[in-house]
Amino acid sequence: MRKRKYKATLQYLGTRYAGWQVQKGQRTVQGVIEKALMRLAGQAVAVVGAGRTDAGVHALGQVAHFPFPDRDSVPDLLKSLNALLPWDIRVVRLEEAGDAFHASRDARRKRYEYRIYNAGILPPFEHLRACHVARPLDLERMADAAGRFLGEHDFSGFAAAASRVRSKVRTIQSSKVLHEGPVILYRVEASGFLHHMVRNMVGTLLQAGWCDRPCDDIERILLSRDRGQAGSTAPAHGLYLVRVWY
Amino acid sequence: MRKRKYKATLQYLGTRYAGWQVQKGQRTVQGVIEKALMRLAGQAVAVVGAGRTDAGVHALGQVAHFPFPDRDSVPDLLKSLNALLPWDIRVVRLEEAGDAFHASRDARRKRYEYRIYNAGILPPFEHLRACHVARPLDLERMADAAGRFLGEHDFSGFAAAASRVRSKVRTIQSSKVLHEGPVILYRVEASGFLHHMVRNMVGTLLQAGWCDRPCDDIERILLSRDRGQAGSTAPAHGLYLVRVWY
Repeated sequence: MRKRKYKATLQYLGTRYAGWQVQKGQRTVQGVIEKALMRLAGQAVAVVGAGRTDAGVHALGQVAHFPFPDRDSVPDLLKSLNALLPWDIRVVRLEEAGDAFHASRDARRKRYEYRIYNAGILPPFEHLRACHVARPLDLERMADAAGRFLGEHDFSGFAAAASRVRSKVRTIQSSKVLHEGPVILYRVEASGFLHHMVRNMVGTLLQAGWCDRPCDDIERILLSRDRGQAGSTAPAHGLYLVRVWY
Repeated sequence: MRKRKYKATLQYLGTRYAGWQVQKGQRTVQGVIEKALMRLAGQAVAVVGAGRTDAGVHALGQVAHFPFPDRDSVPDLLKSLNALLPWDIRVVRLEEAGDAFHASRDARRKRYEYRIYNAGILPPFEHLRACHVARPLDLERMADAAGRFLGEHDFSGFAAAASRVRSKVRTIQSSKVLHEGPVILYRVEASGFLHHMVRNMVGTLLQAGWCDRPCDDIERILLSRDRGQAGSTAPAHGLYLVRVWY
């Protein structure tokens, strides 16, 4: 049967998954979606995601593409797929895509948000959905530091030590600290991100917010290209892949 | 050692509990708090809550009182207690209360909210935190019906069939339908509520919102005092005990 390419927009709660990417012996988001599609198609279906989220990281707008027999209407396929997926993964939008569409290569921009709950007591409803920071944070200092990520930089200082991509130069198009009551949201947009990059940036912003390091340390770390200079990696469960632009 | 009475404001996610009240062989919110207090006090501590929430019902502002040895400072006791409680129960506020204070008898008013997610697809983040209603609801009709609960009525038509309290007359002080995007919130305040009352009211409001019954059916059901006339009991997981006034 002739196949079509589909573009799916996904939401998931990352808590029960060893991340996006298929790994042997692990329950992953990509793996669970491929299994559901295989049941529907009666054959193996390869799913390609826009970004590989780590274990525990959530998505409000992950995008993926996959081929599927040209058989069901889009609303029917959406319904069947959600019926087979566990409650913590949902396809919130499904569209036909051109044959050339590639969820990862064609992504022009991605938005991540990191959610911090800054108060002595973490409400049960925020458990594993925000990073609990009891120690008070200075928001103005965090915003000052966040602004220093803007523009094109070599992010070696903020990449996972084991990262082996060719170039670590990335362009940050937006880098903002938002807040409402005790919830602090760090929102960052770039054409692409390195492994652990947002979480390492957040780890460093937290230190600036605690006055444990000056805001202009951001420039110093970027120039040093030395991972040892930045703050520690913030926990995965505060991070959300929010949107992908094509 | 001399004892003091404490007033605790609690938040909990009701999902993992067989409701508030201690029941033999069941994990309950009251039971888990009493166990934590017993560990701290070295003796049995009886906790009295403002309202007995059902299995699966959440709280953003349950209130409880308990006696405790006059030994620790309030902030220290709060910290020790939260450290012993599981993540899905949190004491968000702790105060000393007068010896006469009674969390249930002294409650002047309570606010419950019922959270409905009205869209075809339920986001993973709303799972067991909102009632998923795929069929479109007419908000104006729901608001019209909700307003008809205001004032003093015999709520026999909306009480659990097995309810054996003396009087089923209650006064509704506020009854509003709020919404933001696909989230519909029914907020109701009264001096007291009968068992299953809010969930039965919501079941009936849903029927009004679906145009399955006229809005003035509310008056008819109230006058009939017949539980058989009202809608079915809405699921527990949409319900939140939000605030108690003294």
